[in-house]
Amino acid sequence: MQLKKILVLHGPNLNLLGKREPHIYGSTTLDDINEGLRKKCSELGILFESVQSNYEGVLVDKIQAADGDYNCIIINAAAFTHYSIALRDALAAIRVPAIEVHLSNIHKREEFRHHSVIAPVVVGQICGFGSDSYFVALEAACRIMYREAGE
Amino acid sequence: MQLKKILVLHGPNLNLLGKREPHIYGSTTLDDINEGLRKKCSELGILFESVQSNYEGVLVDKIQAADGDYNCIIINAAAFTHYSIALRDALAAIRVPAIEVHLSNIHKREEFRHHSVIAPVVVGQICGFGSDSYFVALEAACRIMYREAGE
Amino acid sequence: MQLKKILVLHGPNLNLLGKREPHIYGSTTLDDINEGLRKKCSELGILFESVQSNYEGVLVDKIQAADGDYNCIIINAAAFTHYSIALRDALAAIRVPAIEVHLSNIHKREEFRHHSVIAPVVVGQICGFGSDSYFVALEAACRIMYREAGE
Amino acid sequence: MQLKKILVLHGPNLNLLGKREPHIYGSTTLDDINEGLRKKCSELGILFESVQSNYEGVLVDKIQAADGDYNCIIINAAAFTHYSIALRDALAAIRVPAIEVHLSNIHKREEFRHHSVIAPVVVGQICGFGSDSYFVALEAACRIMYREAGE
Amino acid sequence: MQLKKILVLHGPNLNLLGKREPHIYGSTTLDDINEGLRKKCSELGILFESVQSNYEGVLVDKIQAADGDYNCIIINAAAFTHYSIALRDALAAIRVPAIEVHLSNIHKREEFRHHSVIAPVVVGQICGFGSDSYFVALEAACRIMYREAGE
Amino acid sequence: MQLKKILVLHGPNLNLLGKREPHIYGSTTLDDINEGLRKKCSELGILFESVQSNYEGVLVDKIQAADGDYNCIIINAAAFTHYSIALRDALAAIRVPAIEVHLSNIHKREEFRHHSVIAPVVVGQICGFGSDSYFVALEAACRIMYREAGE
Amino acid sequence: MQLKKILVLHGPNLNLLGKREPHIYGSTTLDDINEGLRKKCSELGILFESVQSNYEGVLVDKIQAADGDYNCIIINAAAFTHYSIALRDALAAIRVPAIEVHLSNIHKREEFRHHSVIAPVVVGQICGFGSDSYFVALEAACRIMYREAGE
Amino acid sequence: MQLKKILVLHGPNLNLLGKREPHIYGSTTLDDINEGLRKKCSELGILFESVQSNYEGVLVDKIQAADGDYNCIIINAAAFTHYSIALRDALAAIRVPAIEVHLSNIHKREEFRHHSVIAPVVVGQICGFGSDSYFVALEAACRIMYREAGE
Amino acid sequence: MQLKKILVLHGPNLNLLGKREPHIYGSTTLDDINEGLRKKCSELGILFESVQSNYEGVLVDKIQAADGDYNCIIINAAAFTHYSIALRDALAAIRVPAIEVHLSNIHKREEFRHHSVIAPVVVGQICGFGSDSYFVALEAACRIMYREAGE
Amino acid sequence: MQLKKILVLHGPNLNLLGKREPHIYGSTTLDDINEGLRKKCSELGILFESVQSNYEGVLVDKIQAADGDYNCIIINAAAFTHYSIALRDALAAIRVPAIEVHLSNIHKREEFRHHSVIAPVVVGQICGFGSDSYFVALEAACRIMYREAGE
Amino acid sequence: MQLKKILVLHGPNLNLLGKREPHIYGSTTLDDINEGLRKKCSELGILFESVQSNYEGVLVDKIQAADGDYNCIIINAAAFTHYSIALRDALAAIRVPAIEVHLSNIHKREEFRHHSVIAPVVVGQICGFGSDSYFVALEAACRIMYREAGE
Amino acid sequence: MQLKKILVLHGPNLNLLGKREPHIYGSTTLDDINEGLRKKCSELGILFESVQSNYEGVLVDKIQAADGDYNCIIINAAAFTHYSIALRDALAAIRVPAIEVHLSNIHKREEFRHHSVIAPVVVGQICGFGSDSYFVALEAACRIMYREAGE
Repeated sequence: MQLKKILVLHGPNLNLLGKREPHIYGSTTLDDINEGLRKKCSELGILFESVQSNYEGVLVDKIQAADGDYNCIIINAAAFTHYSIALRDALAAIRVPAIEVHLSNIHKREEFRHHSVIAPVVVGQICGFGSDSYFVALEAACRIMYREAGE
Repeated sequence: MQLKKILVLHGPNLNLLGKREPHIYGSTTLDDINEGLRKKCSELGILFESVQSNYEGVLVDKIQAADGDYNCIIINAAAFTHYSIALRDALAAIRVPAIEVHLSNIHKREEFRHHSVIAPVVVGQICGFGSDSYFVALEAACRIMYREAGE
Repeated sequence: MQLKKILVLHGPNLNLLGKREPHIYGSTTLDDINEGLRKKCSELGILFESVQSNYEGVLVDKIQAADGDYNCIIINAAAFTHYSIALRDALAAIRVPAIEVHLSNIHKREEFRHHSVIAPVVVGQICGFGSDSYFVALEAACRIMYREAGE
Repeated sequence: MQLKKILVLHGPNLNLLGKREPHIYGSTTLDDINEGLRKKCSELGILFESVQSNYEGVLVDKIQAADGDYNCIIINAAAFTHYSIALRDALAAIRVPAIEVHLSNIHKREEFRHHSVIAPVVVGQICGFGSDSYFVALEAACRIMYREAGE
Repeated sequence: MQLKKILVLHGPNLNLLGKREPHIYGSTTLDDINEGLRKKCSELGILFESVQSNYEGVLVDKIQAADGDYNCIIINAAAFTHYSIALRDALAAIRVPAIEVHLSNIHKREEFRHHSVIAPVVVGQICGFGSDSYFVALEAACRIMYREAGE
Repeated sequence: MQLKKILVLHGPNLNLLGKREPHIYGSTTLDDINEGLRKKCSELGILFESVQSNYEGVLVDKIQAADGDYNCIIINAAAFTHYSIALRDALAAIRVPAIEVHLSNIHKREEFRHHSVIAPVVVGQICGFGSDSYFVALEAACRIMYREAGE
Repeated sequence: MQLKKILVLHGPNLNLLGKREPHIYGSTTLDDINEGLRKKCSELGILFESVQSNYEGVLVDKIQAADGDYNCIIINAAAFTHYSIALRDALAAIRVPAIEVHLSNIHKREEFRHHSVIAPVVVGQICGFGSDSYFVALEAACRIMYREAGE
Repeated sequence: MQLKKILVLHGPNLNLLGKREPHIYGSTTLDDINEGLRKKCSELGILFESVQSNYEGVLVDKIQAADGDYNCIIINAAAFTHYSIALRDALAAIRVPAIEVHLSNIHKREEFRHHSVIAPVVVGQICGFGSDSYFVALEAACRIMYREAGE
Repeated sequence: MQLKKILVLHGPNLNLLGKREPHIYGSTTLDDINEGLRKKCSELGILFESVQSNYEGVLVDKIQAADGDYNCIIINAAAFTHYSIALRDALAAIRVPAIEVHLSNIHKREEFRHHSVIAPVVVGQICGFGSDSYFVALEAACRIMYREAGE
Repeated sequence: MQLKKILVLHGPNLNLLGKREPHIYGSTTLDDINEGLRKKCSELGILFESVQSNYEGVLVDKIQAADGDYNCIIINAAAFTHYSIALRDALAAIRVPAIEVHLSNIHKREEFRHHSVIAPVVVGQICGFGSDSYFVALEAACRIMYREAGE
Repeated sequence: MQLKKILVLHGPNLNLLGKREPHIYGSTTLDDINEGLRKKCSELGILFESVQSNYEGVLVDKIQAADGDYNCIIINAAAFTHYSIALRDALAAIRVPAIEVHLSNIHKREEFRHHSVIAPVVVGQICGFGSDSYFVALEAACRIMYREAGE
Repeated sequence: MQLKKILVLHGPNLNLLGKREPHIYGSTTLDDINEGLRKKCSELGILFESVQSNYEGVLVDKIQAADGDYNCIIINAAAFTHYSIALRDALAAIRVPAIEVHLSNIHKREEFRHHSVIAPVVVGQICGFGSDSYFVALEAACRIMYREAGE
């Protein structure tokens, strides 16, 4: 059984997690989430890497570089979800399956947050479980990775 | 630790699963999914019940009756997702947290399937992982139930 | 003076009245309302009958059966108000005048609740007075019934 | 029990009632309606006053002046219903509960008459019962006034 | 042959004609137009009256009062053209035929000026001929009045 | 030549045919139509069955059960035409070719009746010929069935 | 029994039938269809004439000339279906009943093909049965013609 | 004073005038109108020519040819009003002022007739006066021609 | 240096300021604001005048009269902001520069308040600073007036 | 190397080129362009033919006839670009690759010129280079023709 | 009294100010503006800092870093105003009040510039005063800062 | 004859060309294209430079720096085409003419790719010729540069 690698991408302003509008996002910080994911991945024997950026270009670069290197991408594109066609094109251009996550239930928020430009190019979408959304996505990622690997 | 109970609701035409448009939904049947979920729940010490119906009224009745009896609802409302405000009102009226699932990535399909009338009243939404969507939702349900129970 | 008969129809989830989102609908139950209406009708010498259902088909059947039997229908179609063209067609197909009521002021709620598909086929619409909406509708029903009867 | 006061406001062109498009509005005049309302109020021990104006400003002034003086406003804003945000703001600015009435069922008429800009700031809306709409509104007004007064 | 009477109504800001945006409206003043119309009417043996107002209510009153007194109304509702449903209702309520005129070709101007709320209730519409629009409307008015009179 | 079987489905309120808005639908009853179709089928050596229901769930069940049993479905979904995605999904899930019929020309009626949610999953659509629509559809069904059968 | 005459009109590019996009329209040519229709009409004792044109004006002329000469028109307006208000006005101006046909199910194709500007002025519409659409329309035409003739 | 020449263009189906939908267009024929205009022009010393066509291309050719030859165009584009951008471009390309006329008040008819694609390139628009619309347009044309000529 | 004059116009319901929905507008009254502005103007050597009206016509008259008399207009059109094209035309017709102010940030409120029909004809817009909006506008007015005066 | 043939189609009003709105289209005439293209083609050893028509039907006929005869079509559909679905269907029906050209940058002009109904059925689109657009298209045509020919 | 600090952020292309489209933006450069603001702040005893960037990420970083360090942000987001939800989220995530400014009156420009995605998360908006917009915003900033500070 | 300089800008993800979705974009790499363009430019005596970036800010900087240095810009803005108003403003701010290119025919792809925010500020647009689009643009660029230079 080949070792699996997962890349978790966090979009703009997620570095503020735990400080920003806690009534919507809770008090867990991004470091807390990354630590939790790393620990869980370690238990599952999966290599874990994570990047946060406020720059669309950095995320596009990371997605492009993931091709042939990672087995799955988990991406919370945050604000970019709603307009970054560049992220969409990057995700569509690579062969790594991607899972879209959101902390909040985007359908309970402003009208413009209901629509995701990256949704049509990812495998699936998970939203509304707070920081648990990432862990639920990890569960989904495992199912995708091991199924694809025929394991 | 109190025993948890989960209700899984399957909407119209899902009884055809495995026969209907397999290029979209795969060949797993609804019985396969229910068996898998029951087995997984049994491992987790969770009571599992499941209902499928082609009648909106039956599902409304089940949701109403779940109040005070179940700890979480996982619902694949299928076609009703897009117009059954009656289901939405039923989900909003009870105190049981609900998770919306879809087999396919609804954002890759016809325009009218992009919009869910029940999304704003559930905790979160999971779509695109085929029959795995239910199992990923089960992971989310556990996190919700045990967090709420302070366990 | 011929004895008048009124049929009051309650749509999906109204059986939860008094339990569901009390900040919107108040704590009066559907039984309270029916009792109140029955008592008022009795004072006015009007025969009163009432049906609640979560099934669109049941309400369609009731409306059809009312033709030639009742003098007026008071209907709170609840969620069906916004999409059940079947209810609309049933109301349009019979000769019994109907009055549409809503507990809440639907214009203060979500955008999709502002539009009623049955409004164009009823005599008039009353909304926003809580459980009083039914009693205000009864006042309107009397005026319609006795005017038609030339009394 | 304190004496109640009701203000009935009639918008533009309602002074023509009984002459204007009788197939829509019937042959009852505004004086007939005011007389009927006055008589009914007198029976109920309610002080009644009524104003009709073709000037938006006059109606805004009347609404402002009603604050602290009247217990309820019944308003048929006629054409202003569909564009007078000034009326809306006036009604929102005072503490007197208001009831919106229309003679005709506005949902059976031209598309632009389906939308009311004042509906979100009144207690409730009544339409479609011809001149009876006012009397049905009076029934609603009593229920509001005496409930508020705890009587 | 009975003597004919024409009422010409000028809407808000038309008192500024000749001073306001002359590249759109030319330098002819409203007095010039009224004088020209009066002279032409006098030649034709028609009684002519004219009112300009910046108040919607004044115009509504004038239209109502014209019923049974004038044979034709020529109205340039100016800004009111695009939102005054009160003017529309007034014109619809009387039996005097009305002709809508505009100095400029409203279809060459801002999008919101393309739509007239009074157009559906007048006999016809004339626009784009500068101050000549009124005189062209007078020609149309004569044809209407004498045809109706069977002359 | 194998014997052919046709299933004719009638949606909500069609049981009222001949009583309901006769200026739109004519005075022929549903029994008349079924009798006529049965007789015609008998002449053509086709087995005929017919179901009418006001319940969406009943029609979904019937469509599912038709798979492998019938050679063609003729469906007048009535009000469900415009919102029942559950019917659409059922029709899409089976291999029996379906023909959509309407008594009236839906393009001459209210705007919301112009759109059919089932049209994209049926073979073809026939509307506007009153009760003849069913017989014209029978002609189309024969052409489909015998062509498919290579006869 | 008076002899009936049918005019079949084919719109732009239908002369290419059998050559153009066969996966949508099949390999039958327009001559094949006309021959089939002529033969069928001959069996039924109906006079048949057919015109194809890429010129909107030619079709308008033919429709105008049909008045008083033909008993029914079957028209496949092809591309003109979606914008030729001139064809619509011609069909509305004559007293010959017309039936609209389309080879393909227009509701399965591009969005702009879902709307027909002529649909509101024809008796009925038939689409989706390939070249059979014409023959199904012939069945409908017979029913219309002999009913009108009281035969 | 130079002799003036006017070209009157009539669009598709106007040759049917007097026969087509007389409740909308009246019983006057196109020949009647042309005769009336010719006579009036003769009185005014204006050369008059008129063309009717069901072919968009014929009208485009006529408009192009009018440049440098006529002093004014009066055009009733009929159905072409709403989609013929070719007519619009032709009118915009020449230096002859044009006046758009319509027999009926297009704002009282179907929604799609409210919009004219040629309105932004003509001097002005006249509609709603039946066959008088042409004569009212002639009055406007004279005012334009003699003003331009400085007469 | 010529003495400057500023006219401050307050639209409908602003006379209620300090009483109306204080959570949106604060408790400062209109008199407080006018006093503050007058004092500030006095310090700056500017003549100050202020008018409040619930009548659109009064504001139109004031704007027209300001031409040639004032150096700058500060206008809070309140509800009229969103529909009074008459105010817009008045502001466009004069040569006095105008500044639009709003107490609240209109982009945080109801959708219909996001759009201002007068914004395209004023110099600039200031919103969201509560009663300070007027004083900030005064700062802007000074910059405009003294720049224009070349001072 | 087989000799290539190119057909250049010019839509309505392009015969006026050089005379019509020169600030948009320049002063080059259509003959100038055709001469330039013929000369360039001659240098490249390509057979050149050109047709201009104000008749949609003529262009449809030419496109149909080009099949099997020409190697490439360059089409400036002018006004037809925006509504002629007949042209679109003709271009889609043949196997000759087509290139759409426009003299002006259609995205800088009126909103309705931004959309082309033929764009989805041509190889590519070129706009904005004045008469050079045709020559740039010729460059593109050569690349297509010689690539297809494997040269 | 604590010393106040203001951060002024300039979005993409504002470094070209004075060179770019001077008929819209004037000839003042960004350095001129910054110098003016610095001087004014110095007079007022306020610390001033300014950043311009063509990178959305740089501005997001600066906004995040301002939290707890600055008392007010003045932001001209330029092109980002209309689509950068990342900027919006950053502004919403911090506790520093922000003021949105624009040089031009965005309501006089292209339709897409009328809408600001950051407007709902700032205190207020100022536009249309050219480079003065910044100084007017400074006035507003002072009022906000000193009020908050209770000074 | 002055030496000409061309700048070719490639937007996000174009560095993946030849790897990404080859059924849409072909197998030519960006290096292949740049080499081909460099060689062609060299033959034509034109200086060629090229930049690709996944960062919007980098492209804005490059466009600004091109002013006064290059004679023409050819830009394939890729995903940025559809939302980067910052790129639009940069292109509008400089005096270098720009040509927009796309590899694919954007009108055959997803709806959101039909609209370009930069189209209104470039000279012209070329799409659909695969990697040839760049070479066709080079042909256009030469015509622009040498025409401007009067050569």
